[in-house]
Amino acid sequence: MSDMMRSLIDILDLSPREIDELIATATDIIENPSAYSRKCEGKKLATLFFEPSTRTRLSFEAAMYELGGHVLSVTTTDGSSVAKGESIADTVRTVSCYADIIALRHPQEGAALVAAQSVPVPVINAGDGGHCHPTQTLADLLTIHREKGTFENLTVGVCGDLRYGRTVHSLIGALSRYAGIRFVMISPRELRIPGYVTASLQENHIPYTETLSLEEAIPDLDILYMTRIQRERFDDPVLYEALKDSYILTKDKMALAKEDMCVMHPLPRVNEISVAIDNDPRACYFKQVRNGKYMRMALILKLMREPFSPKEPRTLYHHLRCNNPRCVSRTEQELEPSFILTGPKDAPVYRCYYCEHKAR
Amino acid sequence: MSDMMRSLIDILDLSPREIDELIATATDIIENPSAYSRKCEGKKLATLFFEPSTRTRLSFEAAMYELGGHVLSVTTTDGSSVAKGESIADTVRTVSCYADIIALRHPQEGAALVAAQSVPVPVINAGDGGHCHPTQTLADLLTIHREKGTFENLTVGVCGDLRYGRTVHSLIGALSRYAGIRFVMISPRELRIPGYVTASLQENHIPYTETLSLEEAIPDLDILYMTRIQRERFDDPVLYEALKDSYILTKDKMALAKEDMCVMHPLPRVNEISVAIDNDPRACYFKQVRNGKYMRMALILKLMREPFSPKEPRTLYHHLRCNNPRCVSRTEQELEPSFILTGPKDAPVYRCYYCEHKAR
Amino acid sequence: MSDMMRSLIDILDLSPREIDELIATATDIIENPSAYSRKCEGKKLATLFFEPSTRTRLSFEAAMYELGGHVLSVTTTDGSSVAKGESIADTVRTVSCYADIIALRHPQEGAALVAAQSVPVPVINAGDGGHCHPTQTLADLLTIHREKGTFENLTVGVCGDLRYGRTVHSLIGALSRYAGIRFVMISPRELRIPGYVTASLQENHIPYTETLSLEEAIPDLDILYMTRIQRERFDDPVLYEALKDSYILTKDKMALAKEDMCVMHPLPRVNEISVAIDNDPRACYFKQVRNGKYMRMALILKLMREPFSPKEPRTLYHHLRCNNPRCVSRTEQELEPSFILTGPKDAPVYRCYYCEHKAR
Repeated sequence: MSDMMRSLIDILDLSPREIDELIATATDIIENPSAYSRKCEGKKLATLFFEPSTRTRLSFEAAMYELGGHVLSVTTTDGSSVAKGESIADTVRTVSCYADIIALRHPQEGAALVAAQSVPVPVINAGDGGHCHPTQTLADLLTIHREKGTFENLTVGVCGDLRYGRTVHSLIGALSRYAGIRFVMISPRELRIPGYVTASLQENHIPYTETLSLEEAIPDLDILYMTRIQRERFDDPVLYEALKDSYILTKDKMALAKEDMCVMHPLPRVNEISVAIDNDPRACYFKQVRNGKYMRMALILKLMREPFSPKEPRTLYHHLRCNNPRCVSRTEQELEPSFILTGPKDAPVYRCYYCEHKAR
Repeated sequence: MSDMMRSLIDILDLSPREIDELIATATDIIENPSAYSRKCEGKKLATLFFEPSTRTRLSFEAAMYELGGHVLSVTTTDGSSVAKGESIADTVRTVSCYADIIALRHPQEGAALVAAQSVPVPVINAGDGGHCHPTQTLADLLTIHREKGTFENLTVGVCGDLRYGRTVHSLIGALSRYAGIRFVMISPRELRIPGYVTASLQENHIPYTETLSLEEAIPDLDILYMTRIQRERFDDPVLYEALKDSYILTKDKMALAKEDMCVMHPLPRVNEISVAIDNDPRACYFKQVRNGKYMRMALILKLMREPFSPKEPRTLYHHLRCNNPRCVSRTEQELEPSFILTGPKDAPVYRCYYCEHKAR
Repeated sequence: MSDMMRSLIDILDLSPREIDELIATATDIIENPSAYSRKCEGKKLATLFFEPSTRTRLSFEAAMYELGGHVLSVTTTDGSSVAKGESIADTVRTVSCYADIIALRHPQEGAALVAAQSVPVPVINAGDGGHCHPTQTLADLLTIHREKGTFENLTVGVCGDLRYGRTVHSLIGALSRYAGIRFVMISPRELRIPGYVTASLQENHIPYTETLSLEEAIPDLDILYMTRIQRERFDDPVLYEALKDSYILTKDKMALAKEDMCVMHPLPRVNEISVAIDNDPRACYFKQVRNGKYMRMALILKLMREPFSPKEPRTLYHHLRCNNPRCVSRTEQELEPSFILTGPKDAPVYRCYYCEHKAR
């Protein structure tokens, strides 16, 4: 399409310089909200949520209202046409006749990329299965920046389910681009950070340590990013019961932390942070919520004025079929399977262009 | 929290003087709607409906739009985070990052009070299980005031399910504060008004009578408040069949009523009022719907400018646990059970601070 | 009611002259959108969708936003009061206390007519079961007019499920009022156009042909209106498999068509049009989506300024009961069954006033 707009699929689509610009815009919005209250007048955001995520949806909708725009809202249970066998491409093409920008949440991995390829309006990935959720990471980054004034020279602890937590993987990826960052991975053995994440850290010479103990790790941290450990992740319920309390953040553990450590959590929490900590000035998880709204405002403004500038063309390979059962390429009508070649030359790896899973 | 706003949980939280003020504002809105059409410009109302109630939700949303504000809408079937085990407090804290005022409908009794304690923005109870629904009563009060010009010296008949009908209990409570009010309770034996309601009337020397016959009672009434009798309330279906017709308001029964009697109903009706009466000038149930919107507008305006002024501190007792299975205190994360002491000195009663059920 | 507004139930409620006016308004909106951006300021549209239809709902909502108005949105899964046994009349009466105009989608045939009779505000039929869906036809008509500049002297092919496709029946009805129209009905035998449609064409001396072959028919067509063939319509799955490919529009078949043939489809499509055709300039189905929004804007503007002018009174007969299980007259509270007398004098037919089914 001739006049396509810029979309956001993955946090790494944004350069560090672009993230700085978004933070500068968000900061200006916080300081001068009324200067932005008509920026999107007459414009419409569609929130297409084919999977429940009330808080992300409301954050986008509040962002658009604070920019003076309108919202068209679709949630799964609307019984959308998707249920009638319509392709994602057709659904977003239709919606792009009504809306100027689309925020898409979809259970299939790669869905937002397919959507972005299909419409002239900007598409924001509001979560595509277990794949990416870049606006959560934008909320995290603004929070760190506002609390610490920098992304450099920080010791960042990530705690809980590091295996399946896409939020954590995405945050590590985004922070790895800054100098002096050090990670502490805190998790039970069953939920260790995946090998491909640590491989990438090693490759880029970014220091990290792994530990089982939140209590031992906490005194060194500038940031503690908590996530939830789900019972369902454990084969052995006895093991789960034995472990779970050691990954709950309590007043006692907070007593061991720095006075300016910043506690973060993507929410919703269940019980992994005691409510007794909510009034501790180091608790930043509700600030993250507020910051998420401001970063989404900044992002909407950015995307609605930026033409699409295609990246350097990548060579796509079409001789494979993706094995990931949640990949969008397995169901989307007449969508050609596509792979990119990654990894070192002596051990090349084909990864699905849509969901990034390795081909077997 | 330092700068909390006033919330509305129970109709009795409002003094008769405050109700007069709300009625005055609503009346002015009816007469000069355009004077109010920008009062909430740039403000956002969140309607959080964790239980279906389309008409109440739409009434709040229409009210906010007529004040020039925006609406963030969440209905149960959105699959909200509540389903993922998040506490009510966390849910509303998150929403308060996006919205300036919250209308909450929730199946658990006491939910709105927990919400109001958790956030700085005003919370309006839009129904907490079988407990309270104060904005319905505000709609009823404006209707009575507009039709009769006063709350004093009225004979008010309440008919139908007086046992479970929280609407009726709440209206009786609100009207009991005016001089010269007299109640006629019209119901089958199975659905008589509860003893605690009549006890309170006796205590306050408010005259009332109980009767089985709508036909006999109707000639004396200034107001007839109809409610629905549900088959499910009867153990004996034969009894239900024998009774039900005598509690249906027909043209024949209307012929026995005063020329200026006012027929009210909280809606939805099923068949307890014949549609043949809809065009009778005494039928006020659709006026109630319209009045509900105006009172909600007046209420939103009032709450958004009023700081929270804590009532005289009440002594709370924490040695009991609430037995009401629908009470919010049984499930809310880390919420301490709390009771207040009520009743006469010689027969004191502990009531749950959240749902007001008696402790056993 | 004294000051009722005009509603739209059936496309034939609009005269050809009124359709010309709507097309003129829609064209002006397309050319001067900003002239319309405040036309409905302070007004509210309620979209009541008691059956899922996301694209129709969004089209109405986008239309209202582009006119500067507000939207109150109700979808089935809200758990509306309808589920509690409330009548359609009561539901829309309540909603008319909040909204200035109502778009109603309902599974029962005749529901929109019952609604329009019950409220003073305009009701737009957004689909009542298999009965009518006039705003889809308005979208189709604007598309034909913009592509062809006229409704006269066109050869219109309709292809696919002609038996159950109400969209097709409605389009044929609307186009039959113009000079020089010729229809080509393309379908498997199992899904032939119903006899009452062809009878009406014969009566009005409108030429049409029926054929099994899309390939043979396509070279003559000015318009090709595609619809979906559903497997469930066939008793014999073998037959379905043998047939289905011949009704799929491919590049090969497009090569046989005129250079300015216009391909239309009401959407959603499943696979009956290959995505390879989407970039063909003759593909008009996404233009239809956009045109649908503009015609809905024109319609909202028209209805909100037009008082109801009752048609010449029709004689209604009440001695029958409608046999159509989906007819609204079978469930609506205290609604009297009503029939009109149609057909030639020597073979009179009673048709239900609400759903238009023949009485048996």
